[in-house]
Amino acid sequence: MKRVAVLGSTGSVGVSALDVAAHLGLEVGGLAARSRREALRGQIERFRPARAALADAGECELLRAELNGGATRLHAGPEGVRTVAGAAESDLVLCAISGAACLGPVLEAAARGKTLALANKESMVMAGPLLLEAARKSGAAIVPVDSEHSAIFQALRGGGPGEVRRVFLTASGGPFSKLPKEDFAAITPERALKHPTWTMGGKITVDSATMFNKALEIVEAKWLFGLEPSQIEVLVHPQSIIHSMVEFVDGSVLAQLGLPDMRTPIQVAFTWPERAPGNVKRLNLAEVRTLTFEEPDREKFPSIGLGYRAAEAGGTMGAVLNAANEVAVERFMAGEIPFPRIFGLVREVMDRHAVVPRPSLEDVLRADAWARQEARC
Amino acid sequence: MKRVAVLGSTGSVGVSALDVAAHLGLEVGGLAARSRREALRGQIERFRPARAALADAGECELLRAELNGGATRLHAGPEGVRTVAGAAESDLVLCAISGAACLGPVLEAAARGKTLALANKESMVMAGPLLLEAARKSGAAIVPVDSEHSAIFQALRGGGPGEVRRVFLTASGGPFSKLPKEDFAAITPERALKHPTWTMGGKITVDSATMFNKALEIVEAKWLFGLEPSQIEVLVHPQSIIHSMVEFVDGSVLAQLGLPDMRTPIQVAFTWPERAPGNVKRLNLAEVRTLTFEEPDREKFPSIGLGYRAAEAGGTMGAVLNAANEVAVERFMAGEIPFPRIFGLVREVMDRHAVVPRPSLEDVLRADAWARQEARC
Repeated sequence: MKRVAVLGSTGSVGVSALDVAAHLGLEVGGLAARSRREALRGQIERFRPARAALADAGECELLRAELNGGATRLHAGPEGVRTVAGAAESDLVLCAISGAACLGPVLEAAARGKTLALANKESMVMAGPLLLEAARKSGAAIVPVDSEHSAIFQALRGGGPGEVRRVFLTASGGPFSKLPKEDFAAITPERALKHPTWTMGGKITVDSATMFNKALEIVEAKWLFGLEPSQIEVLVHPQSIIHSMVEFVDGSVLAQLGLPDMRTPIQVAFTWPERAPGNVKRLNLAEVRTLTFEEPDREKFPSIGLGYRAAEAGGTMGAVLNAANEVAVERFMAGEIPFPRIFGLVREVMDRHAVVPRPSLEDVLRADAWARQEARC
Repeated sequence: MKRVAVLGSTGSVGVSALDVAAHLGLEVGGLAARSRREALRGQIERFRPARAALADAGECELLRAELNGGATRLHAGPEGVRTVAGAAESDLVLCAISGAACLGPVLEAAARGKTLALANKESMVMAGPLLLEAARKSGAAIVPVDSEHSAIFQALRGGGPGEVRRVFLTASGGPFSKLPKEDFAAITPERALKHPTWTMGGKITVDSATMFNKALEIVEAKWLFGLEPSQIEVLVHPQSIIHSMVEFVDGSVLAQLGLPDMRTPIQVAFTWPERAPGNVKRLNLAEVRTLTFEEPDREKFPSIGLGYRAAEAGGTMGAVLNAANEVAVERFMAGEIPFPRIFGLVREVMDRHAVVPRPSLEDVLRADAWARQEARC
């Protein structure tokens, strides 16, 4: 019986992960959230984990008072989240903390030999080689939970390691794929938060609207699957039914399909290398009727090109892409910059960055901090 | 280095198979054809196999005179084809003889422990349990070459044996899927021979127009993959890009895609369990743009229901379905019966058949002969 820790348990992926854990009857050994005290308290009461953490230390103290003892040991602050990630009560850690904040806990879990169910793109984008090296040393397995990378991970079983010609990351195209570029300036945060097929957190939804999610996924795919950037294609597929594909050297393409529901890739990661009966709605293609595909418009979405550039540059450029984008999205959401400025801001920070080719964790964190600083100007 | 024998080498699958063998640099140890002497002579001159056979003994004698010696040993008649199937010069036998005539050579190759690249549906439909048992005893592997079953075979690697919920056999729907049923009576053999996406032999093209190909594939899938008939779905997909799919118990669906080109499943079978660089045109879904899906119209195509019925009945019913259909197609092609009568003829023969539950090869051949006789009345 696997025992799971869910990091980012009060976010949309975290909530789905607990739903899957309950469905599979898995023991929940740890929970961690940023600041949603009320939601975490409910989860602690339901799942009775050995440990829980709130990154917000003040909220954590309030929670401690509210719980007033009980079976769950509480940990405060980012160190507390890392403690939950590495603690002995869990052998599988679902990492669904949004953004760069996941890096520390992910590295901790990897160093401790946990199976990493990786829903957070940023840790791999920022520090792919460090994370892979930590996992290699400890024997930790990394199973992607991102629907695209889960699809590739599943399809890769159809061939051997040297037999992949290329992969296709599918993209919904976001809500603005049909909008003329001239109208991008008028996009408000409210409009950017409406995703056509997936229900997700705010940052991820804006990333889908800018297609910076694909930029991050290109870098993530490079590290996760050991691919050259030229082996990674992006294909717009508005229905989000084919979650991604692998083309093998003989021309056979294997794809993973399903209705858009994060519980599927989460469950795949929780039960891997086996499968267990799921409780998601079954795909009926005769009901879906039509799947469409088109090339991404790389002129309208310069994010795609920036993703390839970061994947090609390697080193600290992934961290810079990610950090600059996080700040640009925050500034857009705060009304400080218009939507199309997100692209320019990220590009300019990348332009100014001197890549450190084989970065240490400190180099990565320094590049991250530098890029945030630059993107705020 | 694998050495291949190609049975049915002058048909469309056989020609593609030799193309693939040449591309992969495989040695061709044996060739067999029914009656196309000229074509076989060209292949013998090109590939210089150790043995070749013509099922038509008269044509074989003419060929012997034409070749006037040479490195290739010639064998005449159906026994000659079986000799090529079982001969020591080949360890992989591609079985692409159309119809029931493939059964003897397939069983011979299975008994001799050859890897069977099975392009012929009929041997599995007629005698699935006998063929599986022969392969089990000798250790022969069976790799399907039918594009649908090859797709399922490839997708099955994405999970374990007890983890399949169901499979979807995709169907182009044939040239008449949009034709009202009332107009079926007016379909001529010439019209039935025009297939929208695949270029194939005459019998197979008519089977695609009647959807009896799916009926046979339902029975074939049952035996090949050890499925209950209720686990087999048929999905009309006119573009023939998704070649078939597997739904696992957790809701993940894995599909194999590609442009319609028989060289892909042939090469998959020739190189299995590895893959090798192919020379087929690469799939670009952004060029294809749209894939569509619909339920098959089982009222318009009673063939589908007859396929399920044969799969459920088991025993000799597969042989009867196949034999009655072969005769019905011959009679339609000869102008003896109208197109819609194919369905009625097959059903009536099945209605009259007393199933032998665990048939011997003799039982199967007797049922086959009986059904042919019945279908001629």
